[in-house]
Amino acid sequence: MANENILVIGGGPTGLEASKGIAELGYKVILVEKRDKLGGTPISAGYAALTPDMQNAGDAMAEMAAAVENNSNVEIMLNSEVINSEGESGNFKVKVKSDGSEKEIAAGAVIVATGFTHFDPGMETQKYGYYEHDDVITIVDAEKLLKAGTFIRPSNGEKPKRVAFIQCVGSRDRQIGNEYCSKVCCGITSKQAIEVRELLPGCKVYIFYIDMRMYGYWENEIYWPAQEKHKVNYIKGMATEIIKKGDSLIVKGEDTTMRRPMEIPMDMVILAVGMEPSEGTKQVADIFGITKNKFGFIETTGGALNTVSTNVEGVFAAGACNGPADLEDCISAAGSAAMKSIATVRRVAVTA
Amino acid sequence: MANENILVIGGGPTGLEASKGIAELGYKVILVEKRDKLGGTPISAGYAALTPDMQNAGDAMAEMAAAVENNSNVEIMLNSEVINSEGESGNFKVKVKSDGSEKEIAAGAVIVATGFTHFDPGMETQKYGYYEHDDVITIVDAEKLLKAGTFIRPSNGEKPKRVAFIQCVGSRDRQIGNEYCSKVCCGITSKQAIEVRELLPGCKVYIFYIDMRMYGYWENEIYWPAQEKHKVNYIKGMATEIIKKGDSLIVKGEDTTMRRPMEIPMDMVILAVGMEPSEGTKQVADIFGITKNKFGFIETTGGALNTVSTNVEGVFAAGACNGPADLEDCISAAGSAAMKSIATVRRVAVTA
Repeated sequence: MANENILVIGGGPTGLEASKGIAELGYKVILVEKRDKLGGTPISAGYAALTPDMQNAGDAMAEMAAAVENNSNVEIMLNSEVINSEGESGNFKVKVKSDGSEKEIAAGAVIVATGFTHFDPGMETQKYGYYEHDDVITIVDAEKLLKAGTFIRPSNGEKPKRVAFIQCVGSRDRQIGNEYCSKVCCGITSKQAIEVRELLPGCKVYIFYIDMRMYGYWENEIYWPAQEKHKVNYIKGMATEIIKKGDSLIVKGEDTTMRRPMEIPMDMVILAVGMEPSEGTKQVADIFGITKNKFGFIETTGGALNTVSTNVEGVFAAGACNGPADLEDCISAAGSAAMKSIATVRRVAVTA
Repeated sequence: MANENILVIGGGPTGLEASKGIAELGYKVILVEKRDKLGGTPISAGYAALTPDMQNAGDAMAEMAAAVENNSNVEIMLNSEVINSEGESGNFKVKVKSDGSEKEIAAGAVIVATGFTHFDPGMETQKYGYYEHDDVITIVDAEKLLKAGTFIRPSNGEKPKRVAFIQCVGSRDRQIGNEYCSKVCCGITSKQAIEVRELLPGCKVYIFYIDMRMYGYWENEIYWPAQEKHKVNYIKGMATEIIKKGDSLIVKGEDTTMRRPMEIPMDMVILAVGMEPSEGTKQVADIFGITKNKFGFIETTGGALNTVSTNVEGVFAAGACNGPADLEDCISAAGSAAMKSIATVRRVAVTA
């Protein structure tokens, strides 16, 4: 017998938006989240402000969470993980482990919204000294400092006078197998550069990049103000190594515009780490038999004209579990997945 | 009395996807298209292949059109334009001029999907000689040549031996007021460069760019193969002028990597023109009282967490009418708009 309920896996921006959309159309949602709270990576990683519009991340996610918590069509299961699935489109039987006990959920369609994980710059490549030098941090670490409102050097608690961002850490890198561009790091970096300059007007901020991928309105909303209003210095160059010299960090590499080697002293270096598939994405893909691409993200079918369908009928995937995605991508795709999943349960209900 | 029908304005990829989504959920759609056929810009401008996956544009759009033509929930009005609107969310009375006669349509919600227009490089700036030199064309013109399968010089019908693409024509340009990045031109150019190299293996292809914005998978799906497999030459440089010399075009500018002026002879030059708001977008925005941004695109509300709502309750906007958008953006946003428009008519119906 066909089931009209829809299972949403993942309670980040994508899963919350999809759940809200489905519930507002009168269908029942079971929202499964492995953590003990909703909000996804913006909450678990402690983001300060969203890119590009600098909304307070905590407030924005709390509002999204409240929208599903206050909708009686949504059943929320926290501390819960999908561990098995049987059945087919219209009639999935999904086993969920929740606080130690197991429960079977019946659903007509499934939306995977298991997101991404941040690249670990210490694990894959040691050239930046992420695990060695206290003042080498990532854009994820920087969000926490910015959220606290005190942007200080981890090594000594002092305000930095010279900060460098290094782009494409874990992205566009064949050596480690991450050939894709992570799409959002240029924007996040420029947003953080502005925030650092606002907090510490005396601090010089440099961004070392290959191409600044400030697509669409990010160009005029972030990139131009960063340069013109906030005097952030963009340097087209590759940083290949970071060493410690006395109290400073030395960024070594090549300035590709000036075509000369560079060795620039910095107080802090912030690595713009890219996106990788989360463990949850890989696990859920395997449980449902969803095809992954060579990077481990979910492979959607239908090219540019279908952003959420997978090889498994009745199972949709939206947001960063499919690859690099900005928040707008996630929110839009959540709508598409919501719509197609409802169409699926309606179609199955009619033909069953 | 509230009306549950939804009016979709524009029969391009966004409008077709939204119409299909709404119809599949059991709601009635009135789809208004000003041209005499569905398919939007990919059809009217004669695109050869879609970016990034090189699907045949005609086939792909025909399939999308067939999906709405074969759904009895969709009423299609071709050769039709919205000329007036009264009422409010749940109860719009929209006047449509269709083949000379006027008709009033009742709808509970509206989706604007009126798309974009290609920047005219001859109108705003003469430095590229688009109107003067036959062999200076745009990426839109190039699509038509590629679709015909014979990529030849307009001036003499011969196969070109040296072709240059120039990026950011009409984008990232404060002088003409288009400060935004048009997002898709880097990808379309690289796709076309590959197609030219496949059609004419003896032809050298150059791309002059500021930043290559090959975000996400475009990096590994188009950018790397263009360079490595298809030997397309990417040159970081600004082309500032094109002059004719004998049978050749001379591209003048600065090679910013080599830091020297350049004057390079070419047989054809292809201008990667950006996106501007269509006349239809500006007209429809004014009819419904939708706020436009300073570029004339529709301004959505809610930042990154809402990609389709406008300042007018019950009126949503999706795709390139909101600003530079790739096909994936359009398709995803269509789903979001479909979902939110149905939620609107349901909510209004309940509370009315």
